[in-house]
Amino acid sequence: MGKQFLDITGQADAERKIRELSERLAERLASESEIVRIEDAPGRIASADIFSTLDIPPFDRATMDGYAVVASDTYYATEDNPATVVVKARIHAGDAPSVDVTQGFCTGISTGAAIPEGADAVVRIEDTTEHGNEVKIYRPVVPGENIMPAGSDIKRGEKIVKRGSVLTVRDTGVMAACGLTELEVRKKPRVAIISTGNELLMPGEILTPGKIYDVNLRTLSDCVRDCGSVPVSLGIARDRRAEIRDKLIEGLKMDVVLISGGTSAGGGDEVPGAIAELGDIILHGVDIKPGKPFVLGICDDKPVFGLPGNPTSALITFNLFVAPLLRRISGLDTQKPCRRMIARAACRIFSEAGRNEYVMVKLVPEGDKLLAYPVLSGSGAITTLAKADGYIYVEKGKEIIEEGAVVEVVSLTC
Amino acid sequence: MGKQFLDITGQADAERKIRELSERLAERLASESEIVRIEDAPGRIASADIFSTLDIPPFDRATMDGYAVVASDTYYATEDNPATVVVKARIHAGDAPSVDVTQGFCTGISTGAAIPEGADAVVRIEDTTEHGNEVKIYRPVVPGENIMPAGSDIKRGEKIVKRGSVLTVRDTGVMAACGLTELEVRKKPRVAIISTGNELLMPGEILTPGKIYDVNLRTLSDCVRDCGSVPVSLGIARDRRAEIRDKLIEGLKMDVVLISGGTSAGGGDEVPGAIAELGDIILHGVDIKPGKPFVLGICDDKPVFGLPGNPTSALITFNLFVAPLLRRISGLDTQKPCRRMIARAACRIFSEAGRNEYVMVKLVPEGDKLLAYPVLSGSGAITTLAKADGYIYVEKGKEIIEEGAVVEVVSLTC
Repeated sequence: MGKQFLDITGQADAERKIRELSERLAERLASESEIVRIEDAPGRIASADIFSTLDIPPFDRATMDGYAVVASDTYYATEDNPATVVVKARIHAGDAPSVDVTQGFCTGISTGAAIPEGADAVVRIEDTTEHGNEVKIYRPVVPGENIMPAGSDIKRGEKIVKRGSVLTVRDTGVMAACGLTELEVRKKPRVAIISTGNELLMPGEILTPGKIYDVNLRTLSDCVRDCGSVPVSLGIARDRRAEIRDKLIEGLKMDVVLISGGTSAGGGDEVPGAIAELGDIILHGVDIKPGKPFVLGICDDKPVFGLPGNPTSALITFNLFVAPLLRRISGLDTQKPCRRMIARAACRIFSEAGRNEYVMVKLVPEGDKLLAYPVLSGSGAITTLAKADGYIYVEKGKEIIEEGAVVEVVSLTC
Repeated sequence: MGKQFLDITGQADAERKIRELSERLAERLASESEIVRIEDAPGRIASADIFSTLDIPPFDRATMDGYAVVASDTYYATEDNPATVVVKARIHAGDAPSVDVTQGFCTGISTGAAIPEGADAVVRIEDTTEHGNEVKIYRPVVPGENIMPAGSDIKRGEKIVKRGSVLTVRDTGVMAACGLTELEVRKKPRVAIISTGNELLMPGEILTPGKIYDVNLRTLSDCVRDCGSVPVSLGIARDRRAEIRDKLIEGLKMDVVLISGGTSAGGGDEVPGAIAELGDIILHGVDIKPGKPFVLGICDDKPVFGLPGNPTSALITFNLFVAPLLRRISGLDTQKPCRRMIARAACRIFSEAGRNEYVMVKLVPEGDKLLAYPVLSGSGAITTLAKADGYIYVEKGKEIIEEGAVVEVVSLTC
């Protein structure tokens, strides 16, 4: 029962292979779209350009309370020698303008109201006095003054949302202004998640001797959701080739499959064999720690990721290898995630010499700095997850990070 | 029809009043909780401490594949002179251990399996050879070697989640390990949102002359959700005191009310009057630009915010005055939002001298710097929202920001 990997792959090589796979899959999935209501749009990806079908504002609009006039009536108005015009009507915001304005006449007008036909400027109420049906104007206005022309904000036919962009509250505001209530967005990739292990029970089941509760279905589901995808939990498979293969067949109805546990090269580890029965193993074993027993296969032209069963290792390999693929195929990779922080090593940190190592750290603010404390990750310790804020990368060959050294911490969750 | 505010409040004063209000409301709401399933927990606030009801691992657990032995049997084992013990059984991960180990005996054991009674160490398979029902051991082990003791990760009764903490994927992982499927979280505050204006139509309605589509119900709903609260849109009220009052009465069934539009001191602006009919006006008018016609009232001991109708002004006053209150009362304020960025002014930026001004900017990366370009925000321009990434604050009395000056940009949405 020796533990032999056929061929350990370097991390950069593994990342390159996964990038290539992402491109193919992204192309295929980019054509799948669905209609959502605008309130469900934030965070989704527009699957087509969106154009305004309206001018915004839809009409010439007053930007001040006052009087809509023919500007030339006011050209010689002064404090001492005001112009006088007759008020024909009052137009409030929301009124359909029903009168024309000609020389010698005006209408009262409210901010936001439509300018009546014939008027070409608005005199502010502060620059007037009203007497019966006449208004005296004490300051001249030029054509266009205090008017926002139709279409000056958004023109009919103007592109308001770009295909592929991640929709924000700002986009939905602009779409609302254009009267839109729904739009076409990319479908989210669906990700099947399977845990393997005879020792695993689902939370909520009764704990019996020798058993533990499964953690990975929970954490991987939450991580998949963070990557703009839909997790579909398929539950736990025993460490039997046939049972794993059956779950995998079910999983291949989705776009991507994640299996955790049973990925080593040892006797009881049936995941690589099950993948090989249904497709091809692309790589098995990566020279990182933790995370070495990582396996990547392709079945039905869909990526199947085998992650180590240890919850911390599962999360690290998810972050390194699965998250970039999911962000790429969901279309979220155009958005820079805020996932990297600069900190200083709080003490000497030792690393194994022969492997690229990911050291889990907890961040503690001190003054204006962040200190990174290493968190010991025992074999399968769950609390590592709860205590660590992220990890730092220690390259193969580097054995010590000195106290105070600047380190880049990658957040485990965004 | 003069536009007079009774009393313009300074921004710091307004913020202080809102902070006091937040504290009272937060205390009241902190006691309201609900049960959610663990998959819906990320982002919610734990309303009570959570303790483990289990030891994790629940039993002494092998961390290597090999043989569970009595350590003293191996003390004198060497390459040349191996110890020999008899294999009584094989224990796989998930098996309930059914045999005892005594001196001279052992069991085969897999990683993750429960250590049988009597054994106190695990010899790695690499350090053994098996012959029939005997195993030869070539390296000594000490008691405890390759065993993770019961409760060494999490002790029964240990606190695993602190009351008031924002739940992350890491917390849900630890809860899953403890077998939990649901938990008690704080109820999200419910926020009623009302738009006012005779000119407003709901997106989806047919556009008629003089009308425009409402934007604020949409953008404020999305912003409320970002602040950990539940938006409840009550639609549009005409500019009539009675209609606004009726909507406000409906809104007061929620925890907070937002009304946009109709907040000036002018003739057609009925929101301050409607608030005054049902409660008290705390402040009306703040010395910022844009955002001056901001009103805050208290009705039925609940905060009622009147925001300017202009979408950009509504969003800025939401960010300044409403978001901190919502984050406080929803419990999210313990989490530092990643909302501030450092940039450089891309050109000279001019500001009005007499008021604290918020200048909307677009951020454009250049090399390793971010350049902040001012975005002109016309009266009611919707596109300002779509173009701007955030705003910079220019204090009263400062009229010019020089090109290249370092500025802090506050993101409009997180």
